[in-house]
Amino acid sequence: MIKKKSLKFSTKGNCDIINISDDIADALSSSGLRDGTVTVFCVGSTGGIMTCEYEPGLAADIKDFFQKIIPQNKSYKHDETWGDANGHSHLRASLLGSSVSVPFIDKKLVLGTWQQVVFIDFDNRPRSREVILQFIGEPR
Amino acid sequence: MIKKKSLKFSTKGNCDIINISDDIADALSSSGLRDGTVTVFCVGSTGGIMTCEYEPGLAADIKDFFQKIIPQNKSYKHDETWGDANGHSHLRASLLGSSVSVPFIDKKLVLGTWQQVVFIDFDNRPRSREVILQFIGEPR
Amino acid sequence: MIKKKSLKFSTKGNCDIINISDDIADALSSSGLRDGTVTVFCVGSTGGIMTCEYEPGLAADIKDFFQKIIPQNKSYKHDETWGDANGHSHLRASLLGSSVSVPFIDKKLVLGTWQQVVFIDFDNRPRSREVILQFIGEPR
Repeated sequence: MIKKKSLKFSTKGNCDIINISDDIADALSSSGLRDGTVTVFCVGSTGGIMTCEYEPGLAADIKDFFQKIIPQNKSYKHDETWGDANGHSHLRASLLGSSVSVPFIDKKLVLGTWQQVVFIDFDNRPRSREVILQFIGEPR
Repeated sequence: MIKKKSLKFSTKGNCDIINISDDIADALSSSGLRDGTVTVFCVGSTGGIMTCEYEPGLAADIKDFFQKIIPQNKSYKHDETWGDANGHSHLRASLLGSSVSVPFIDKKLVLGTWQQVVFIDFDNRPRSREVILQFIGEPR
Repeated sequence: MIKKKSLKFSTKGNCDIINISDDIADALSSSGLRDGTVTVFCVGSTGGIMTCEYEPGLAADIKDFFQKIIPQNKSYKHDETWGDANGHSHLRASLLGSSVSVPFIDKKLVLGTWQQVVFIDFDNRPRSREVILQFIGEPR
């Protein structure tokens, strides 16, 4: 059985990290599924999906890390194509990845105690975002 | 229902980026499936799969980025094992990842307007490549 | 059909790389499934899953690479939150990713000749670990 859910939310851009774990758990609860896998997919090429411990210190470290390896204040050839100055956003998003697949067993995601599924917005401005959850599994 | 498709193509190696979005959409069209998820998997340990906006400026940025963080002209311990001078290729591929999972709804991949699924060949020479598409979903 | 399997093992931490390809192949053999996709998921936020050629030279290169871009001997804001000095472990794990999805066809994973699925433990101490395998596919 396949059950889909679209999550829509606003972000501040600039490495804003949104914890979507509770939204995924809620969608799983109302899906009627017991065991399976959910694919969490970011629609758009300047956002990413990852798992991490969601706490402000690590969020700052993540921001620092991306600024170090893919700096915002540097010129990218992508910027010459469109002039929207978000070449760094595209590079960061491609590197991190746009999907994570998480198994669920007995109606629960198999995340660790401190492990969350988060969306990270690498764009250089506030955005309205959509994340698609596709659940594939066996009914209860 | 499960539907598989093997994509075969040639690359130039050296960060050659191949846009396989249309091939995936075509395979979905002929799969007879309506809703589900496709897993796009790179066979081999020196290629990767990612999503990105496919345009020449960003392709050049991606090449520059990998050359900066995992330079080709540097010695790697992997090269001592085999002598094929592609240690950088293996490192880059492992970092980027070998699979992406993309949901589809009503016979369409849920990609953003500028978001493509691409194969990137990190090897240091032209290669013949295979990418496996595994569709899991509900029939029409 | 959904078949799950939990892999449990001990690691040395500090970029210890564990080849779990044979465990996945064994679980596939006893699953009764023929065609489908397995999601390999790391429970916990300081470990990662990737594919690579599993040989000691590349394992050393991987360790060197992560030490270069996310050094252990550097202070992270995450460390101020908990005082467990593993901020680098969290950053590395988030960057690499916690899941890989691998198709299987006719009871075999579609891995390349030299391509393995490995778990990498980024934590700064030995750990007991769990990896969940979730197989979705058609029975034989």
